[in-house]
Order: sequence, then structure tokens, then C-alpha cells
Amino acid sequence: MKKSLLALAIMSITSAHADEGMWMPQQLPQIAKQLKAAGLKLDPNSLTRLTEFPAGAIVSLGGCSASFVSPQGLVVTNHHCIYNSVAQASTPERDLLANGFVARSLGEELPAAPGTRVFVTKEVLNVTDKVVTPEVAKLSGKARSDAIEKNQKALVAACEQDAGHRCSVPSFYGSLEFYQIKQLEIRDVRLVHAPPAGVGKFGGDTDNWMWPRHTGDYGFYRAYVSKDGKAADYSKDNVPYVPNHVLKLAKEGVKEGDFVMAMGYPGRTNRHRLPSEVQFTFDHSYPAFVKASGETLAIIDRETKGNKDLTLKYAGQVASINNYYKNRQGMIDSYAGSDFLQRKTAEHEQLKKWIDADAKRKAEYANDITKVEHLIAERDAEAKRDFNYSYAQPRLLTTARMLYRLANETQKPDADRKSGYQVRDLPRIKSGVASLVRTFDPKVDKAIAMHHLKNYLAQPAAEQKTAFNAALGIRAGMSDAELSAALDKLYAGTKLTDAAARDAWLDKKPADFKASDDAFVKAAVALYEADMKAEAEEEELAGKLQQAYGSYMKAKIAYMKSKGQAVYPDANSTLRVTYGNIAGRAHGADGTTWTAFTTVKGVQAKHTGTGEFDAPKAQLDAIKAKDFGKYVDPKLKSVPVNFLATLDITGGNSGSAALNAKGELVGLAFDGTLDSIISDWDFNKANTRDIQVDLRYMLWNMKHVDKADNLLKEMGAE
Amino acid sequence: MKKSLLALAIMSITSAHADEGMWMPQQLPQIAKQLKAAGLKLDPNSLTRLTEFPAGAIVSLGGCSASFVSPQGLVVTNHHCIYNSVAQASTPERDLLANGFVARSLGEELPAAPGTRVFVTKEVLNVTDKVVTPEVAKLSGKARSDAIEKNQKALVAACEQDAGHRCSVPSFYGSLEFYQIKQLEIRDVRLVHAPPAGVGKFGGDTDNWMWPRHTGDYGFYRAYVSKDGKAADYSKDNVPYVPNHVLKLAKEGVKEGDFVMAMGYPGRTNRHRLPSEVQFTFDHSYPAFVKASGETLAIIDRETKGNKDLTLKYAGQVASINNYYKNRQGMIDSYAGSDFLQRKTAEHEQLKKWIDADAKRKAEYANDITKVEHLIAERDAEAKRDFNYSYAQPRLLTTARMLYRLANETQKPDADRKSGYQVRDLPRIKSGVASLVRTFDPKVDKAIAMHHLKNYLAQPAAEQKTAFNAALGIRAGMSDAELSAALDKLYAGTKLTDAAARDAWLDKKPADFKASDDAFVKAAVALYEADMKAEAEEEELAGKLQQAYGSYMKAKIAYMKSKGQAVYPDANSTLRVTYGNIAGRAHGADGTTWTAFTTVKGVQAKHTGTGEFDAPKAQLDAIKAKDFGKYVDPKLKSVPVNFLATLDITGGNSGSAALNAKGELVGLAFDGTLDSIISDWDFNKANTRDIQVDLRYMLWNMKHVDKADNLLKEMGAE
Repeated sequence: MKKSLLALAIMSITSAHADEGMWMPQQLPQIAKQLKAAGLKLDPNSLTRLTEFPAGAIVSLGGCSASFVSPQGLVVTNHHCIYNSVAQASTPERDLLANGFVARSLGEELPAAPGTRVFVTKEVLNVTDKVVTPEVAKLSGKARSDAIEKNQKALVAACEQDAGHRCSVPSFYGSLEFYQIKQLEIRDVRLVHAPPAGVGKFGGDTDNWMWPRHTGDYGFYRAYVSKDGKAADYSKDNVPYVPNHVLKLAKEGVKEGDFVMAMGYPGRTNRHRLPSEVQFTFDHSYPAFVKASGETLAIIDRETKGNKDLTLKYAGQVASINNYYKNRQGMIDSYAGSDFLQRKTAEHEQLKKWIDADAKRKAEYANDITKVEHLIAERDAEAKRDFNYSYAQPRLLTTARMLYRLANETQKPDADRKSGYQVRDLPRIKSGVASLVRTFDPKVDKAIAMHHLKNYLAQPAAEQKTAFNAALGIRAGMSDAELSAALDKLYAGTKLTDAAARDAWLDKKPADFKASDDAFVKAAVALYEADMKAEAEEEELAGKLQQAYGSYMKAKIAYMKSKGQAVYPDANSTLRVTYGNIAGRAHGADGTTWTAFTTVKGVQAKHTGTGEFDAPKAQLDAIKAKDFGKYVDPKLKSVPVNFLATLDITGGNSGSAALNAKGELVGLAFDGTLDSIISDWDFNKANTRDIQVDLRYMLWNMKHVDKADNLLKEMGAE
Repeated sequence: MKKSLLALAIMSITSAHADEGMWMPQQLPQIAKQLKAAGLKLDPNSLTRLTEFPAGAIVSLGGCSASFVSPQGLVVTNHHCIYNSVAQASTPERDLLANGFVARSLGEELPAAPGTRVFVTKEVLNVTDKVVTPEVAKLSGKARSDAIEKNQKALVAACEQDAGHRCSVPSFYGSLEFYQIKQLEIRDVRLVHAPPAGVGKFGGDTDNWMWPRHTGDYGFYRAYVSKDGKAADYSKDNVPYVPNHVLKLAKEGVKEGDFVMAMGYPGRTNRHRLPSEVQFTFDHSYPAFVKASGETLAIIDRETKGNKDLTLKYAGQVASINNYYKNRQGMIDSYAGSDFLQRKTAEHEQLKKWIDADAKRKAEYANDITKVEHLIAERDAEAKRDFNYSYAQPRLLTTARMLYRLANETQKPDADRKSGYQVRDLPRIKSGVASLVRTFDPKVDKAIAMHHLKNYLAQPAAEQKTAFNAALGIRAGMSDAELSAALDKLYAGTKLTDAAARDAWLDKKPADFKASDDAFVKAAVALYEADMKAEAEEEELAGKLQQAYGSYMKAKIAYMKSKGQAVYPDANSTLRVTYGNIAGRAHGADGTTWTAFTTVKGVQAKHTGTGEFDAPKAQLDAIKAKDFGKYVDPKLKSVPVNFLATLDITGGNSGSAALNAKGELVGLAFDGTLDSIISDWDFNKANTRDIQVDLRYMLWNMKHVDKADNLLKEMGAE
């Protein structure tokens, strides 16, 4: 599973004891009975306290989850979550990615990749009343959107007065509720240990989303702060962060049927969507995405083939598209054979029936349900119309528009600036502009834009954007040669292909943009008014949707409550808890079943010595010699590598600590299986399994292969 | 599994009810109790009668097994057993291999590949007393070998007086016993039906020896005889052969746990070998074979790359080497992790202890046991010494030696000729010479010979053959250029590269060979004396071995009998019966278990639309539409494709009828799994599974996809 794939859905199965659900910690007392029945030995109330054990040890890396495992700020997460840091620290002479890395002392630790963060959640407050105040509740459309954004920004600004913290006010339950999340943002993060890629990425893309799996997907960072304990930029004077709590390593291994729970930061799910949203996604959005992605991949392949520099520049984009491509196609395949839409529709009809059955409920909700259905239809129609347009954007045009917008926003006081263009957003914006050096080539970009522009220009005139066509000098009915010439003119007339030129625009004024004759800057200026208008229209729709969708969710929660069921909000990258059991599955590939564990025997069997299946010799020798030490499983008679569980996770959960009934670390969640990713939308009891790397494999490999004794000692594993 | 791989070992597991064993039909009453316990509903005595049901319906294709399934001589076997016939009948315009073939009437049937035979076993007689007569029993060494061969030839000649029959006198139990087998040799064999290769070879080499499996490995021939019911060459006046018995198709499908047995012609196993033979095979023979095969494959690849004609010429050899390569490497891998040699040694020591414990037994066997161990050591040392020599033979030299030998043997009365060079052997010899046209190229041959000759010439002088070096004009210490020049001289000086020239030598006299200046013919003449001497030495050793090995087996049988156990002879391509149960396996690939059945769901899942996984559209449509008719399995809710059982089979069993407890056809055995092929040597209860194609899949595909209604009707399946 790729951490970038936030929308990726890996969800839990309800075995005898387990149920779906990515619960907010404070909700756990509502399901205390189920947790006890599943086998939890801790008091569910203790799990709600964010600054106590175990939640106090759980952190976010932004896109990945992680945990403190020593009082010296040692952080364990997935190998794929530290991958960029390892790659960046590698040189041809010292290939840490291939050979792995163990810092034998603090002094040997290496800086993580720029921008690497450890976020420690300090506070979660329900601020719904401060976001949707009685005044806001009276507003509609754009005025409502603006007012909500203003309140969110004010809360964030007040919260971030506490230096070194990062705050956000995400919405829950389809914007029915808002919570303020305050996180310590640790900026000095260092690479401590990574196994060789032949362990940490064993199986590569071939095994991605697959079972049986044999990936040692683990690695270690350390969080550093200033001597007075504050978040600080990298400095050799910084000291290891002392977390309030650390996870204890389980002394006993897990086995099939055991209770297990995971705490982490799942990215996004879509379980509370309306039937029409399901239908639009699976009938239009995903198939269109798969088609466009396939075309884009073919163009990149054609344009970069044989050119190592270009291939490297686009490798990240290719990997990302491929990952989504496999994910979306997997969901489409599952959807095709399912009755999901029928069930979703029936459930929605039951909700409406329940609302209509009571006059008071009808008065409160019926109008909003109708309204939300219309608003969604409107939004989907626009998305469909603008699909090709969204793909037909040269990246330098997108960059120029963003830069011009930034210049305009910077004219205002910070509090009034559009969210995303405030002072707090500048580092992200700058690193985004800087990344073009490593990820952009005009020839490849033009080929991609050209392809999608042709699709866009083939649409009816009413579906096209007059200002866009004028700014780019394009029109329907152009020959390929004419379109190509129009694009060539843009690329020839811009200096934005140069990194220094791009950086220079970060500090310029709107007047500078207006006076420029740079082709893409001119286009951005020309498009500004139309872009602002489109944004205002979007915000008008968003304001209406926020109100109606929130009302729909309120009705749904009331309906579920009337049936005695708690409702967890869809994932939104905030801290959640999922619980379940370690469990195989009665069906695997046709002709097989899945057992709950794989072992190092399978590493040996899959090893080919090249490519994606290239285990290190030292590891293979240890396997052959059965040098298993105390990490051998008594029943499996081997070292367990990965195990399946019924946990309800999705992208963003990567690196989540898997805890046993006593809250002790037993492994790290890192993936799910392809035939259960539809669970992002539709929970499937029989199919859904997530995949953990077993703590015993991590410790065995660190002890018997990589000789990371210092870290084992630090974690108390010796 | 490739039918050519006679030594390939796929053996049975003893589940609760099953046991290892490839039993001669006449032995079955000895294990009647076990058969009943396993679930057999027939009288075991009825299985011993070769001309009655069901054995009367079982036939050999020579390298494959098959069965009569209609009173009009319709024969069912594996797709890979009729593969050559389908390939040969295919043209670019009418690609029967790709598209499949159904003869809708007798008139549409096509001649099978030249040399295709259906052998109907008519008689099996124990002729040990006629082969090892009291006079022979007194002889030793070469005199004993010669006398045994003379008696065998005499029995064969007498038996083959009955025109249209083929007879043989193979040895059993390590040449302790000899049986005379009389078979009707049906020579007019026609192709009736083959599914498309996308069904019959679905999964290709990737899935070969693998589970889960989804191969529709079935096809049909029809046996024809003259109007008076005699075996005859192809003629349009011939009529379908009327077999004495035909198999009935089971009306009910099988399920996990069911009794199942297979009747067929397993090629070769090595279960009664001595510990030293095991050690030599796994420490030397197989590793040396794997190394030499890998080298040979690399040379063929290098020499044929980019040349379609050469690639095709060597495709058969490449496939065959690859198949053995995978097989031998699989056995080596299994051996490496096993205690086989220790167990074998312990068993042998127990046998010796049992012999030594009784004075009479000691007198009868002890000397021979010691002797056989010495003789095997001698044989193995020679094999090791001559390993490179055996690979370093240009094929035209081998051909010239064989032709000159034939010319010399032909001077004698037929009965006195060496076995293999008699009149009855001429068709096989001629087709062997003819096959060079399609399978030989001087450039590739030279490259292979050169490589192995270098290894041979690098051996100590004492291990080389003086006459061979002289005849080829080679010597130790030659440079590569000199060796290459010596080979070039041979290829340049021969006409044997020409097919007509090769054929002409089939009819020439020894004097013609002696007078020839053809380089390879001259070499063959020059080598003749040394070759005859080597053969005499081999026969001297063989004569000694026959006596001692037979005595060892006699002791072993007596020992087993003393423990109440029946002993079946190692496989030798004669009719055998194996019984067991349909059973999955508690371990599959690490992290999975095997269920007993695969279904058409898996065909859909594996289908990629290209290469080895390219199911026909009509089949995929039928699967998607769940157009399963009466062939759906009630529990699987789909059509079963392949199933695992604990049957004890090996190469040669391909196409064997799998029968239920009532002796009705339920499928065809066609393969085993890679991690159980060590069972060729060492029976492993936990691992061994063989693979059948389920009759329901065959019938479903014939009915719902290929519309072979005429054949279904003929078999009584409608």
C-alpha cells in the first residue's frame, strides 16, 4: 500500500468478535461491550485519553501512522513510510536503500528527507458550535462557505499561537461536526534504521495488495527537539524528544483468533455516501480515471523511453498513477460483481421512510434530503463536464495560476487570505514549486496536455471554457498540428521552465504579473477573473451542500441510534481506533484458502535473487540454518513474517501500531488485499483482511540478520 | 506434466484411507482390506481381470495412458498426450491448436501424428522361469546378460507371431521377476476432439506442476482397425475398433474425501533403490544434470536467438530440457531439506540386521547384499567419470554409430541381432533418423558439443577415451580455436547433414561404411571396436548386477512380508492401479492451504488475454453468464475444473482414468505438484497430491462452449 493513496480503502471484517469501524477514541465507551467481547483486556475508557497509554504513544507522519517505542523518541513505522528518507540518504557508493542502515549510536543517525514531520496529537476539541455559530446557521451558499472558512482560520490561528504546534479544524460526518486538532509538529526527524529493500520492500509491486505476503515493512525514525523540549529545526544541539508514553513490546507472540487493535490516522473512506454518489463514482469517475490514467501512462512511457533522466523524473508520477490505477480497477471489478448499489439504495429508502414516518422528523430532515440529492446531481454533472478540462492542464499553467493567486492573496492581511495561501502555507507552496525541478519536463508535459486537450476540445462548445480557450489560443476543430503549434508557442514563450525564474515569482506583486509577457504568466492573469468566478460558484454549491449534507448525516445518526447502533465518522486523517481478530480466510485464490500467518519459509520460496524478490544473503543463511532464536512461533515452527487480521484500516493507517488485548505492540499494519479494497465504500464481512508485519519478524531480523542490538536494547526487547 | 518425462514422479499420499503404491492389478486381492476401507465398492478381484471392466477399457498410448469411453473405439486422454497430433494437423489458416477441433462425424476425423498408437493390453504372464532358467541362474556377468536377452527376444518373437500385436518382457523388482506383456497395437488412430489450447494448455509452463491449477487437459482419439477387426495401417476402409469394455461416465460429481482410483501406465519410479544410489543421484547425478542442462539451454538460446527456423527446430529440445530441469531442481530442493537418506540408510541397516539374524537368510542373501553395494559403487564411478563424455557427443556421430551398428547387426539372423536392432525395431530407428530434419542444425549442434567437449578434455587423461579422441582428432590441452577447427573439419567432411544421405545409410552394408570417407561415418567405424568393448563391459556389470540386485529385492520382499506388508514393484510402464481419496492439503504456498477443487471462477481470475492465460471468449462468456447447466457443483456453486487426490502416479500416468468407488469415470489424472515430485524416490504422506481434470469440466466445456454434442451423445453423457 502506498502512503500517498489516501483514498485507498482497506477495511475490517466482522468475524465473531469484530466489527467494521474507524472509531474516534472518545467514542470507544459507546462500544465497550463489543470491545470486551472481542477480547480487550484494557478499560475502554483508558483508550479515550489521548495523552495517556496507549494513545499517547501514537503519532502521525502526515500520510502515515507511527508510534513511540522508547523514552528517547524512537519512532517505529513502515519501511514504505521512511522510503524517501532512505532513498535520499543513499549514494551509489553507499546504497542504504539496497543494503539497509543501522545507526549504532545517536551520532550515526541521518537527517530524514526535507519536510519530514512527526505530529503528536495533543488536543482534540469539538468546535462545531464555534464553526457553525447561530449566525452561520442562518447563512446559505457562498456566504456560509466563507463564514465557515473564516471561523476555521481564526481557530487555527489562535491554536497555533502555541509555537511549534500545527492545528487544523477538519469536518466530520459530512461536515455536520468540526473538531479542532492540535498537534506538536516535530521538525527535526532522523533516520535510525531501515532494513535492506530486499526485506522492507520484498515482493515489490508484484506483491502489493496481495496475500500471501512476505514484506518486512518496518523502519525507525527518531524525533528530536531543542534542549528546552520545543519543536525546532534540525540542529546538532537538539536532543531526543521524550514522549509522554511509549508502547511496550509484547513478550508473547500472537496467534490466530487473538484480539488485535490498531491506532492510527486513516486517510479517507466513503461509507456514508448517498446512493447517487456511489453510482456516479463507479459508473463514471473511476472508469474515467482508469481510462485517462492508462492513456497518461502510455504517453509517459512513450516520451521517456530510453532516456534515463526523463524516466527518473517521471518515476514518482508513474508509480503513483499505477498504484491508483490498480486500486480503482480493483474496486471497479469488485463493484461489478456486487449488489452494493441495490443495498445502498434500499438503506437510503429505509432512512427516508423512517423520516417520513414522524411529522417532527419529516419537518426537520425531509427537505434537506431532497436538497442534498439535487445538489449532488448538480456537482456530479459539473465534474463530468469538466473531467477532460481537469486533465488538460499544462503544469506550468497550473503553477502560474497558483503563483498569481498567491501574489493577490498576499496583498491582504493574513487572516483574510484564502485558506491555503496564508503565511503558514508558504513552506508547502515553496516546496511544491521547487519539486518541479525533479518531476517536470516540458516535452513530456506537452505530450500529456496535448492528449487531454484534444479530448477536451472534442466536447460540445457549451461544455468548454471560453476564457481558457482564449488564454491558451486554442479552439474546437483545430488540427493536431495547430494544437501542437499553440502549445509550442506557450512553452517557447515562458521562462517558467527555469527553476530560478519560478522561484522569483514567489515574491512578486500582482502588478509584476500583469506587466509580464511570459506566456504562462499572461495566461494565468487572463484566466484570473474566470477562475475566481468558478471558485465562487463552487463555494456557493459547497455552502449549500454543507448545510444539507450535515442535515442528512444528522438524520442518519439519529436513525442508527434509534436502532441502537453507534456511528463512526468516515476517515479524515484524524486519530482512530479499529479492533478485530487475527484471522485467515476461507477463500483465497481459487483452489486455496488463506492461513493467518506467513513465515520466513515463504521468503526462501519466493526468493529469486533478482528484482522484487531478492532477500539478503545473511537473511537467507539465517533461515536455512534455522537460526530463529526466541522468535520462532511454537506452532508454525518458523519465524512469522506477516499476519492477516480483520482490522478496519485504509491508506494513512500505514505504520499503525497493532496492539494486543493488553495494548502491547505485536506488529505494524501496512496493507490490505486487492479484493477487499471496495471496502473503502462497502464493508464486506467475508473478504476484508488487512496485513501486518509481525513484531517477531522485525525483532528477529534486527537481532539475527542486521545486528541492531543497540535498538533492541533501547526498546527493551533484549 | 510432460508425457516424455517418464522418470517424473508424482506419487500418492496415504490420507486416512490411502496408501502409496502402484499395484499390479493381480496384486489387488493382497490389499483388498485397505481398498474396502478406502471406500471401493467393487470386488477387488474384478480389478485383476485385464479383459473385463474396468481394466479392459484402459489402454496405453506409449508414454501416456488413456481409456475407451464408447463402443466405437472413442479414446479419452490428456490434451498434452494428443498435442503433437493437433499441432501437426494445424495450418496457419486452420489453427486447430489455437481454436480447438471437433469432428462432428467419423468422416471429419483427422489422422493422428505418424507413429501414434493405441496399445490394448491383452495378456500379462509371469515368465521369470523362462527368462532366468536354471541354466541362466548358473551364469554370471556378460554370459548371464546375453542369455537373459536371448530368452527375452525369443519370448517376444513367439508372442508377436500373433500379427498386429506388440510384446515385451520387462523386468520387475530390480530384475528379480520378468513378465511378458502382450498388447494389441492399433496403428490407425484419428484425432476426434481437442479443446482450444487456451483450455487444454491453460496456464502453460507457468502453471506446470503447480496448484491452484485450471487446465482442461483432455482430448479424444478414435482407434480404427480393419473390417475384420485386426490392427492395420491407416485406410479409409478401416472401421472403429470395438473394445471389450468401455468406461461409464459417473452421473454424480465427486467431492472432497471421496474414494478415487486411477488405472494407467506409470513410467518409472525408484522406491526400492539402495542408500548409495540415493546419495549418488542427489549428490552427483541430478546436480550435474541441472548444471549441464542450464549450460545447454544457454547455448541453444544464444545460437538460435533471432532465427525463427532454428528456434522452432530446437523448441522441442528446449521444452524437454526445461521440463526435466524444473523437475530435477524440484527434487534436489526437496531432498536438501529432508532426512530421506538417513531414513533410507536406517531401513537398509534394518534389512541387513534382519538377514544377519537368521543363519539361513544370511547364507542366502548376505553375500549378494555386499556384492550389490560394490557393483553399484563401480557403476556410479563409471557414470561420474563418463558424465561429460556422454554430453560431448555430436548428434551426427551418434547417428553414424547407430547406423553402422545397424548395418553390422543386419548381417545376422533376426533372432541373433542385438535387441533394439531387430526387424521389429526398424520403424522406430527410421523415424528417429527422419526426425533430424526437424530437430537438428549443425551450427547449434557444434556449439553444444564444443562446450561439453571442453569439459571432457579438461578431465585427467586416464578418464578420457583414447579411441574417441583419435577418431575426432581432439586432445587434452587444445586451445578453443583448435577444438573448434577439429569440429569444423568433421561437419565440413560429412554428408550426414543431408536427410537423403542419412536415409541412404539405413540400407548399406558394413563394407560401404568402411569404404566411406564421410567424416562422421569414418569416426563411427573407427570407434566400433572400442564401443563394442565398452558395451561388453557394461553387460558384464549388468549380468552381475541383475543377479545380485534380484537377490537384494527378494530379501527385501521377504523382509516386508515378515512385517505383513505387500510390496509393489517400481513403475516400469506397465499397467498399474493406485487408489486414494480426493483431498486438499493443510499447507500450500506459505500463508495458504490447498482446497481440493478449483472452479471456472479461477479461469476468469487468471485470464489475461495473452500468452499462457488466454481462455476462449466463448468460455469466458459462459462463465460470466453462469451458464453451467447440470455441471455445477452444488457446494462450490460453480463448475469444478481440477481436483487434488492422493493417488500414486508418475510420468506415463498422464491421461489415466480417475474412477470412483463404482469404477465410473470422474476425471483424468494429468499432473502432480512440484514439492511432491521427490516422491519418485521418497513417499511423503503430507505433501503428495496429484491433479485431475474433473469430468464435469470436460463435459461442461464440450456442451456449453465447444458444442461437441455428438461426442456427448456417443459417451452417453446426454
